[in-house]
Amino acid sequence: MVNAFDPAGAAALDDSRRDMVERRARLLGPGYKLFYDEPVHFVRAQGVHLYDADGKEYLDVYNNVPSVGHCHPRVVEAVSRQLGVLNTHTRYLHDSILQYSEQLLATLPAEIGHVMYTCTGSEASDLAMRITRHVTGGTGFIVTANAYHGHTIAVSQASPSMGEHVPLGVHTRVVPAPDAYRTEGDLGAVFAGQVEAAIADLRRHGIRFAGFIADSLFSSDGILPGPAGFLKPVAEVVRKHGGLYIADEVQPGFARTGDAMWGFQRHGVTPDLVTMGKPMGNGIPIGGVAARPELLEDFGRNTRYFNTFGGSPVCIAAAQAVLDVIRDEKLQENSRIVGRAMLDGIQAMAEKHAAIGDVRGAGLFVGVDFVKDRATREPDAALGLRVVNRLREKRVLISASGKEGNVLKIRPPLPFSLADNDRFLGLLAETLAELA
Amino acid sequence: MVNAFDPAGAAALDDSRRDMVERRARLLGPGYKLFYDEPVHFVRAQGVHLYDADGKEYLDVYNNVPSVGHCHPRVVEAVSRQLGVLNTHTRYLHDSILQYSEQLLATLPAEIGHVMYTCTGSEASDLAMRITRHVTGGTGFIVTANAYHGHTIAVSQASPSMGEHVPLGVHTRVVPAPDAYRTEGDLGAVFAGQVEAAIADLRRHGIRFAGFIADSLFSSDGILPGPAGFLKPVAEVVRKHGGLYIADEVQPGFARTGDAMWGFQRHGVTPDLVTMGKPMGNGIPIGGVAARPELLEDFGRNTRYFNTFGGSPVCIAAAQAVLDVIRDEKLQENSRIVGRAMLDGIQAMAEKHAAIGDVRGAGLFVGVDFVKDRATREPDAALGLRVVNRLREKRVLISASGKEGNVLKIRPPLPFSLADNDRFLGLLAETLAELA
Repeated sequence: MVNAFDPAGAAALDDSRRDMVERRARLLGPGYKLFYDEPVHFVRAQGVHLYDADGKEYLDVYNNVPSVGHCHPRVVEAVSRQLGVLNTHTRYLHDSILQYSEQLLATLPAEIGHVMYTCTGSEASDLAMRITRHVTGGTGFIVTANAYHGHTIAVSQASPSMGEHVPLGVHTRVVPAPDAYRTEGDLGAVFAGQVEAAIADLRRHGIRFAGFIADSLFSSDGILPGPAGFLKPVAEVVRKHGGLYIADEVQPGFARTGDAMWGFQRHGVTPDLVTMGKPMGNGIPIGGVAARPELLEDFGRNTRYFNTFGGSPVCIAAAQAVLDVIRDEKLQENSRIVGRAMLDGIQAMAEKHAAIGDVRGAGLFVGVDFVKDRATREPDAALGLRVVNRLREKRVLISASGKEGNVLKIRPPLPFSLADNDRFLGLLAETLAELA
Repeated sequence: MVNAFDPAGAAALDDSRRDMVERRARLLGPGYKLFYDEPVHFVRAQGVHLYDADGKEYLDVYNNVPSVGHCHPRVVEAVSRQLGVLNTHTRYLHDSILQYSEQLLATLPAEIGHVMYTCTGSEASDLAMRITRHVTGGTGFIVTANAYHGHTIAVSQASPSMGEHVPLGVHTRVVPAPDAYRTEGDLGAVFAGQVEAAIADLRRHGIRFAGFIADSLFSSDGILPGPAGFLKPVAEVVRKHGGLYIADEVQPGFARTGDAMWGFQRHGVTPDLVTMGKPMGNGIPIGGVAARPELLEDFGRNTRYFNTFGGSPVCIAAAQAVLDVIRDEKLQENSRIVGRAMLDGIQAMAEKHAAIGDVRGAGLFVGVDFVKDRATREPDAALGLRVVNRLREKRVLISASGKEGNVLKIRPPLPFSLADNDRFLGLLAETLAELA
């Protein structure tokens, strides 16, 4: 994790937070990391704001899980009501899962006809890989250099961003992330060529190709939206070699990109499987895999998949409220408009700050690529980290992405307004000036 | 699934349910199975009862997820309150996860000092296997013949109950389930010998032994509590060969067995890792892995595990309410007392019904083993299925377990009272008489 708290710094914290840091270490162990040089203790949240134990307000430009806004009253109400009525599993009949599935599938291409529910994006990635292995008979997966698709054993083996101590699967092949800023030539052709070479390498090792997995915004590779359409040639190469195209929509999905409900739609690609998670229930654990029906024919009949909590009435109530709010509050349109203003604002800032090598994004998912030198485009990871921590002091929650951590990751809840954006841009400009 | 609805029977259903069955097939695909020859459509639930669309009441002797009772008001209230205040992830400080972890760990042996949170039991099994692989450097796991530990790719490879179309891992070894009713000699010694032979077989194939995973009630193997203490020799064999002992407490945990909070405690075993899930949040998705701290030392520092929704304030609020209710309503004691009365009642029934070969259980988890012949002890799967469906007609929810499905699986919410038990025993006796 790029911007993790160093426990050695606990002595400098106030009593309350030092005590919490110590109890975390004692109870949860060293696997639990905290954000920032100085961790934050939040006690409440609303909309695009969180409040710490001293009542201080923070502007959230990072959290995509509370996607329709922290503690959105319609989600709170829908979940609370359902909790008191019924919460059971999918082996009894229930209407709300059918109504929701109908509405969810209507947002996807016509070729995607079924949806299966999980509790997390990791479970969704894992299930999509299970289906892909079953359908193709292959085991070889191709992912990008700093991809993250989830934490299960199988998915972590296809998530190089987890670092050198987490083994990549022997059947996993890694291709460079499609970085338009640092790639010469036609990005789609270059990337498709790299994927085709990886397929050939799998074959050379006697491994049958199963599928290609990509988040269309390459969120953990450094936020790489690329030009619209550049993923089309990749999808063609994948199909040509008998593999499936898995669109990991855990981050780009649910109106984040502004242009569309789903990230892959910017590219005119129709995936075989679509995975979803994080924003789907605004924090209530729900994820899913949507698929071409023919892929689930044998898998559904002859294998077994049952997720105890997946698609329960309470989880579906949360997901339904999220869909309703996205529609009623026109959050996709807001994401497009405010995201555009944010891009323009930061691009204007770049005229004064040579450290900003590139600004890119889709809707309310924006990356700012810091470089040491605009000519060499060498990543400036140290600056990324300093900006993240300085903004935290100014009570703006933000993070960094990419293998080097040099890309500022801007991904606020979708109701982020033009006024919120102005406030954020002012504080970012101030920070860049201070650190210049 | 033993007692699944056959979609060919949809024509016989009333319009409303036939329509729902058809929409399920169209939207969710063939992977979604329904219980019973005639599926049930529930619209609300309270305590140990569910109500169908016609307002008819069903007695629940099956569902262990709403473990403190369907829609328990304290869980509803705690979750609803927290939903409106804050729901974020564990990379900020929050107090409730620390308070809950302290209380949860206090119920476990002193050697188990850390807990990590997931959203499901499957994720917990997967994480426990990931930790075990990391710590031991091994990949070989040993499980019982009809075990089910979860649905991820890695965990399904160690879940033989998923059937022949779901591949077992090449590094998985399967031992017979410890069936005291059908095993001659000392069960502990026999079972430990089988596990030791499996370890030798792994070595013979050049596979390093990682761990042994067992649900102490062998829930999907046919509910096999066995004599208290019989798992001790197995744990010794596992340790002798450098493996870890993983107690899968997804089903026996949280006071189900009546004797103790955790199933392994009946056996005087101290596991290396303990996995939990289903009843933990009374239906709100939460699971966890508790571990000896030394096992998480390198794993926590050098690898990466982050579960976006795991341990969130809302999930923890549900789990805290469940712990509080178990304590305040003395549900462990209730499980012990009512479970005992249930065992005695069914044992008395066995005097009149030769089809009951064995009755066994721990607390409110009871198995009734139907046989064609008491001398041969040959399982009578057909009878199990007929009892399940006849009881459903009498509005009692129940299921069957074991490879053959001949074991009636009785596992009601923990507030199941002596009066509920009398009602259930009466209907069970009536059913057995009718089917005799």
